[in-house]
Order: sequence, then C-alpha cells, then structure tokens
Amino acid sequence: MKILIDAFGGDNSPQEIIAGTIDALEQKAGFTAVLIGKQDVIESQLKNYKYDQSRVEILNADDVITCEEEPTVAIRRKPNSSICVGFKELKENPDAKAFVSAGSTGAVLVGATLKLGRIKGVNRPALCPIMPTLIDGKNVLLLDAGANADCKSINLCQFALMGSAFAKTLGVENPKVALLSNGTEDEKGNALNHEVFPMLKEMKEINFVGNCEGREILSGEYDVIVTDGFSGNVAIKSLEGAIKAMFKILKESIYATTKGKIGGLFLKDTFKGIREKMDYNKKGGALFLGVEKTVVKAHGSSKRDAFMNSVLQAVTYAELGLSEKVKENILKFTETQAE
Amino acid sequence: MKILIDAFGGDNSPQEIIAGTIDALEQKAGFTAVLIGKQDVIESQLKNYKYDQSRVEILNADDVITCEEEPTVAIRRKPNSSICVGFKELKENPDAKAFVSAGSTGAVLVGATLKLGRIKGVNRPALCPIMPTLIDGKNVLLLDAGANADCKSINLCQFALMGSAFAKTLGVENPKVALLSNGTEDEKGNALNHEVFPMLKEMKEINFVGNCEGREILSGEYDVIVTDGFSGNVAIKSLEGAIKAMFKILKESIYATTKGKIGGLFLKDTFKGIREKMDYNKKGGALFLGVEKTVVKAHGSSKRDAFMNSVLQAVTYAELGLSEKVKENILKFTETQAE
Repeated sequence: MKILIDAFGGDNSPQEIIAGTIDALEQKAGFTAVLIGKQDVIESQLKNYKYDQSRVEILNADDVITCEEEPTVAIRRKPNSSICVGFKELKENPDAKAFVSAGSTGAVLVGATLKLGRIKGVNRPALCPIMPTLIDGKNVLLLDAGANADCKSINLCQFALMGSAFAKTLGVENPKVALLSNGTEDEKGNALNHEVFPMLKEMKEINFVGNCEGREILSGEYDVIVTDGFSGNVAIKSLEGAIKAMFKILKESIYATTKGKIGGLFLKDTFKGIREKMDYNKKGGALFLGVEKTVVKAHGSSKRDAFMNSVLQAVTYAELGLSEKVKENILKFTETQAE
Repeated sequence: MKILIDAFGGDNSPQEIIAGTIDALEQKAGFTAVLIGKQDVIESQLKNYKYDQSRVEILNADDVITCEEEPTVAIRRKPNSSICVGFKELKENPDAKAFVSAGSTGAVLVGATLKLGRIKGVNRPALCPIMPTLIDGKNVLLLDAGANADCKSINLCQFALMGSAFAKTLGVENPKVALLSNGTEDEKGNALNHEVFPMLKEMKEINFVGNCEGREILSGEYDVIVTDGFSGNVAIKSLEGAIKAMFKILKESIYATTKGKIGGLFLKDTFKGIREKMDYNKKGGALFLGVEKTVVKAHGSSKRDAFMNSVLQAVTYAELGLSEKVKENILKFTETQAE
C-alpha cells in the first residue's frame, strides 16, 4: 500500500514533512511512503535520515501551490504542482490509497474534488476534523468544518451519512449524530436547520439525536455533529481560540507571582498533558470525506510530530477502508431515496 | 431614574434577583429599583434585607413566562407577566430608563420588540454580550449573539452601527469593527458575508477593518464583531464550552496526582482569578440593542453577584445614554442612505 505525501505543503515543508514521514515509517509497517515534490531537494533532505530505503519513493513535481493562490486557478494552472501530481497518482495508481498534505486547504479540497473525484451520490465533500472531548478516549467528528461556506439541506444529510460511516470505521457503534444549532430545542435553528431537521429525523441510516449547541461540542455527548461549512468553521476556530486564550492567560497568571511560579512547577506535566489532549491539530489532520480515496489535510503549521500523526492516520483509515465505508453508506441512502 | 427589575425571571428567581438588586443599590447611588412580580412574594423576600426603602418600589405582576413557553405566544397571552408589565412600564414611564431580566431570552427579545418598540431605522434589534479579551481591561462586543437566526446584509450593517455606538459609549475611540468569517482574507465568507463585506467597507460611519475568524474573537484585536444571530450564537457558545471544558480538565488533572494537588493549592487564587476574568456571564448581562430604551438580559443561571452586575450595567448604560447614542448613529446612517 502506498501513501502519497505532499512534501511541499505547509509552513514547515519540506523539512518537517519529510522528518514526520520517516518517523511514521518507523512507527508502522505495511506501507510505502511516496514523497511528492522537487526530487533533488527531497533526495538531499533524505540524506539526513536513516530509514528503510525500500519503503520510500519519490515522485517528482516541480511546482508548489502556495496558500496565497486562489485554489481553483492554482489547480488548473499548475498541473505539475505537488498537489496536482499527488491527486493524479492517487486516482490512477490502484496501490496508492491515501494522500496527505499540510498545504493550502483550499487547493487540497479543490484538487481532491477535480482531480480525484467525488463519490457518486455526494454533492459536496466535507472537511471533517476529529476532536477530543471531555470523555477520555472519546472523539467527536464535526463536519463540514469549512469546505462549503454555503450548504443546502441535502448536503447536511450527506454529511450525516459520511460522518456516521467515519465514526463506525473508528469503532463507534450506532454513532449519535447531532445538528449544530442555536439551542437544543427541536424548533431552534436558522432556515437551513429548519429544513434539514425533519430530513435528518427521517433518515433510517443514521442515529439522529437532535440539536446540539456550541457549548456541547466538546462534551462527549455526540459522535458526529453536522453543520454548514461556515458555522462549522466558526465553531471550530472559536473552540481553538478559547483554548489558546486559556493557556495564554494561565501562563501569564502563573508567571505573575512567586506563589504562581511554584505552583506552576508542580503542575508542569499536568499542563503539558492538557495541552496535548486539547491540541487536536497535533493529533493528526482533518479528513476530507466524500472523495474517492482517503485524503488527510494536516494543519498548515504541522511540525514533525503532527505530520507523523497525520501520515499514521492516513495509513489507518486506508487499512480500515474508510472511503469504501463512506461509499457504502451513501449508496444505501441513494437507493432508499430512489425507491 | 428608575431601573425596572424582572423579579421573576431566571433559574434562581426571585431570591437571587432580589438579593442582587439590594446589593446593586448599596453599590451605587442615583437610582430606584422597581421590582416587578408577585407583590406578596417580593414583600416577604424583602423582609430578609436591610435597605433604603425609599429606593425600592414594587410593581405587581401576577404571571410569569417560563423558558419552556413559545416566546411570541407567551408575550401575547400573558399581559400580566413580569416581562410584559416591565416593558409596558418602560415604554410609558419617562423616569424608567432600563429593564433587567434573567428570564427567557426569547420572551425578553419579543417583549422588547413588541411592547417597547424598535428604534426607527432598525429592522432587527440584536443581542450583544460584552466579552473579556486577552488584553487586560479590553472587551469585545459580538452581535448578533442569537436574536435573529436568519439575517440580511442590511441587518449586519445596522449591527455594525449599533455595536460601534455601544463601544463608543463604553469609551472606545474609533472602534474597530470586524465581520465574523471563515477566514481573514477579504474574499472569504458565505453568501451573506460576500454581500455585506463591500457594504461595510463603504460605510463612513464605522471603522471597518475586515474579516475576523472565530479564533480571533478573544484576541483583543477588535472592538465590535458583527455576524448573523445563528453564527454568533454558535461562536459564543463554542467559546463558553471550550473555557468550561478547560476548567473541568484542569480540575480533574490536578486532583489526579499528589504533585498536582500541591500545585493546585499554590494556584488556587490564580485559577479563581482566571475564572472570574473569563466567565463573562458573571460580569453582567447582554445588551439588547436597537430598542427604544436600555434592556439588559442577564444570564438565566445568574446568582446574586451576577445579577447585581447586570443591574449596575443597566444603570451605567442608562446614565451614559446608550440607547440615545445608538439612535443617533442609526439616524445619521439612514440620512446618508436617503441622500
């Protein structure tokens, strides 16, 4: 099984990307890493590491798409970019099972949709991060986290199906699916929510449990939370911002007094643990669900560890047959709809 | 100046509401508190306190609107509820300058709109909490936080004007107004954002600085953040949820080890300070901007301290002439539009 790596995506590429890939190879057997990008640069970087050479390949791509470029334009104009070469390979090579990139989110999404292709029956693929919750070991999937700023009700129904398939793939039985809203009562919501609520309620393929507020996202009460890509993005970034703010205030307050500094020393490991628990970006990337194969979007600021985790995620999802399971769920639903 | 108090609104009414009101009277001179609700209950509660009797009045209201009731129906069917009696008095009595309630948000919003009335030129009043930021002493206003789940571009322009007037009333010179979006670049956003962005840019009455992401809400970079009531509600509740989650994890992690417990003892005051800083619900209520007089919506779970702060807020805003300043800003804008 081949995992394709965009060696030239992200703020710390190619160094941290290549280092993280090498680490992933050490962590897990059973896959070959295909590093995509400028061959000479990759080759000279690889000289810094000891690794099993039979498990690393290079696929040359001379161009790079930056975050400043308009994604649709960039994907069309740069067929030799690491992202375009990656998706072409992913589509054409049956051994290639997943693509991992820390590059421009927009370009990865557009590239996946245009070059790799959507699963039949999916109108809009969605970005789906895996977030930690207050319940130990339990995660929550939120989609769409930002691929589609404007959504229709049918998109949200498909997000529910895809998220549910993803949660099941991760081992959750009968995942609880909620609709993000401005209140928990059934009648809460905006026009889109009012339209989609009864549709979700009717869907036999999912376990829809009703509305969920922003303050319950991390509660561990839900397995999958669906929403449009605008609200999803606002929610996730608000959560991130609040957690970041809390750490900043905590640090400043601790350093402000001697008593604080002493307490801080005792709690150093505790704080480190909490940071690791809450910083889901370090745990791996977000999945792009609804396209033909596994696509993992690692955080743009990923360093070695975070990128390693994203690669390991990609391997795991490919092994578990994530995209096949999403496909099955969508197919079952479209068949019911056609009846 | 009279400040009207819904004595029968909120989870802890009437006890904590009355206690908080008495505390507010002690904290600040220059106003009379009018407690609205069942006269006999209020009278018997008041017996528990020592206070300046010349500064407390009771306005009888036999009914109570609960959070379970549909707001529009409840406001129409219960003219003798504390909320309806309060808004009638606020409209008719020139001495009455503000209304404070910890009751049903929906009922307060509908009551304010129907019984008190909108400012001319405001299509949709908005709920506007004042939130702490990472910069000490600096707050951010976010509106609409949930009064209008579906908004048009003109609503957001009016929110910008009202928020700007509010920030100026609080002493901010040339407040920075941002549009909540799914990215900071100008071209980011959903259909509503794409429509409103150039309109905000054109408005000479405000200092529009562009898009702002969820993760920047608490940064202190912005004074006013405008958005539709659905996204605003999602953002605020996500922030609340993340902060609550952080405290929970912090507490659990500290109690998990002996080292943690020792560190926790040293940091007890620090944690208390952070909690007070970040828990904006305890600092006071959210303003309902765009109606004829000052309306403060205290958090439903307000206890004595939080409610006292909401009453003090109402007094301050009434003294500063908040609703008059909002009116002026709206008027100036509608005149420009008419030219």
